[in-house]
Amino acid sequence: MKALLSRAGLLCEFPPAVTLVEVGARDGLQNESAVTSAAKIALIDQLSASGLTYIEAGAFVSPKWVPQMADSHEVFSGIQRAPTVTYSALVPNLRGLEQAIACQADEIAIFTSASQGFCQHNINCSIEQSLQRFEPVVSQAQQLGLKVRGYLSCVADCPYDGPTPPEQVASVAEALRDLGCYQISLGDTIGTGTPLRIARMLEAVRKQVQAKQLAVHFHDTWGMALANLYQSLSMGITTIDCSVAGLGGCPYAPGAAGNVATEDVLYLCQGLGIHTGVDLQQVAKAGWAISHILGRRPISKVSLALYSKLTQKKT
Amino acid sequence: MKALLSRAGLLCEFPPAVTLVEVGARDGLQNESAVTSAAKIALIDQLSASGLTYIEAGAFVSPKWVPQMADSHEVFSGIQRAPTVTYSALVPNLRGLEQAIACQADEIAIFTSASQGFCQHNINCSIEQSLQRFEPVVSQAQQLGLKVRGYLSCVADCPYDGPTPPEQVASVAEALRDLGCYQISLGDTIGTGTPLRIARMLEAVRKQVQAKQLAVHFHDTWGMALANLYQSLSMGITTIDCSVAGLGGCPYAPGAAGNVATEDVLYLCQGLGIHTGVDLQQVAKAGWAISHILGRRPISKVSLALYSKLTQKKT
Repeated sequence: MKALLSRAGLLCEFPPAVTLVEVGARDGLQNESAVTSAAKIALIDQLSASGLTYIEAGAFVSPKWVPQMADSHEVFSGIQRAPTVTYSALVPNLRGLEQAIACQADEIAIFTSASQGFCQHNINCSIEQSLQRFEPVVSQAQQLGLKVRGYLSCVADCPYDGPTPPEQVASVAEALRDLGCYQISLGDTIGTGTPLRIARMLEAVRKQVQAKQLAVHFHDTWGMALANLYQSLSMGITTIDCSVAGLGGCPYAPGAAGNVATEDVLYLCQGLGIHTGVDLQQVAKAGWAISHILGRRPISKVSLALYSKLTQKKT
Repeated sequence: MKALLSRAGLLCEFPPAVTLVEVGARDGLQNESAVTSAAKIALIDQLSASGLTYIEAGAFVSPKWVPQMADSHEVFSGIQRAPTVTYSALVPNLRGLEQAIACQADEIAIFTSASQGFCQHNINCSIEQSLQRFEPVVSQAQQLGLKVRGYLSCVADCPYDGPTPPEQVASVAEALRDLGCYQISLGDTIGTGTPLRIARMLEAVRKQVQAKQLAVHFHDTWGMALANLYQSLSMGITTIDCSVAGLGGCPYAPGAAGNVATEDVLYLCQGLGIHTGVDLQQVAKAGWAISHILGRRPISKVSLALYSKLTQKKT
């Protein structure tokens, strides 16, 4: 354990290793302009070679609502499966689960919100109804031996309801766990959370769900993602959602943009002596390629700094 | 004091209030394309109205080396002095001090480096020589009742020498204090520092210089500024250098760019319940105005998020 001397000489501890959940190819690209299946496949294959062990590769949702994910079948069929990598798919219902199974997804992910307002706007039902809807999905997935991950959005603030009480986050996280999710990803969907509020939220959630069953999913819309991550790491969180080149955001939350970039997370972990097993340079290269296709710069300061170093050396 | 429950249930404390040192008009603009004196004056006047109490307004350095600061005399003469604000000037030598006095600067700032390599490249002498050169400047300033602030660069890494040993930072910080500086601003000039290394550096420096005599000056080139600031706040640092709209960088350090944005610092402090006395909206407005003049977007996620909220409400 890395030890850090704090102000009063107290010791804060960081985990020796963390797992990164790469969501760029799904949560990222579903909120960008559409790219070809070939581009997605190339991105995922590059990410697979970087040392990442968990890649969300697609979503089996209505192409009417999320046209960017309409080719998830092609993507799952086209990628080269690395034996060290878990390839997961987001599914909204039984139909999506069937498609995920047909594509041999290794795991599935379901989603709800910690706030009623967001749940209503996002999936058109109450939190309770969303949990009921996912019950048969989880149960059938489990019968087939598929592990289920749960996304919980708006764990700090909701664009419709304002601040989300930490106890409410804890209670929905517990419900997802009881439903059968082996891991709950706590999402600061609009990125307004600051470290003290994130700490209080995690403190409340940890009373119901063990830290090892939790992941954090930060958005950098207000620049707080790494400070929030730093706080979370000191509280025993060992799974981090992140998105290569900072791809994506949330289409349903006004003003929301910017999953925290995988490159930035890697640089922070590296600096804290926390093992990730992931090659930063390779992830950065994958990010430059997809950013080039999207016609814009990566939304990652580490990626830009690495690129600038590289081009300076060449000249 | 705000208390934060850490992993092991230990308490980390944050200061109830901090002072922001706004360096955008000097450290920022000296590294941007030149703007008119009128634009600088308007920027400083807007910042003065925001509640900021310390504004670095110019530098009396060679116009051959830093042409962007050649009009510091006009700027000091043109601004409306708010009685609550300290207006300081950077000076490299006795000639600069005379000019600062002629312009009625409230304080002066001098500068050296914690690394020999950077000192040589930046001011063409060793650290020891730089301290000797500044001795008559500090002594004459003190005779006139002018307080002197000291900048110390490369406190984490040096682009020429690599990592800077924390003890070396501590030793030069102590020398600056002994020279007569009432405050030492610790600069992560190339922005490569991560929280654990910043903590170790601060730990070493605090053994020689009291925390209340220290300021932190972070660059966000590698996205670490706010995580580093969060760590520093937990270690008793109460003065923070920052730059409206993230103006500027360092012209002497290859690849270096991006003083941490004042807006981002304010949002973090606000979220931690730390008093700043500064109006975030007014700083953001000042940042939008100068960014418009520079023809680019603010380098501040908080500023961009605020702007996006504002324009969404209007439509």
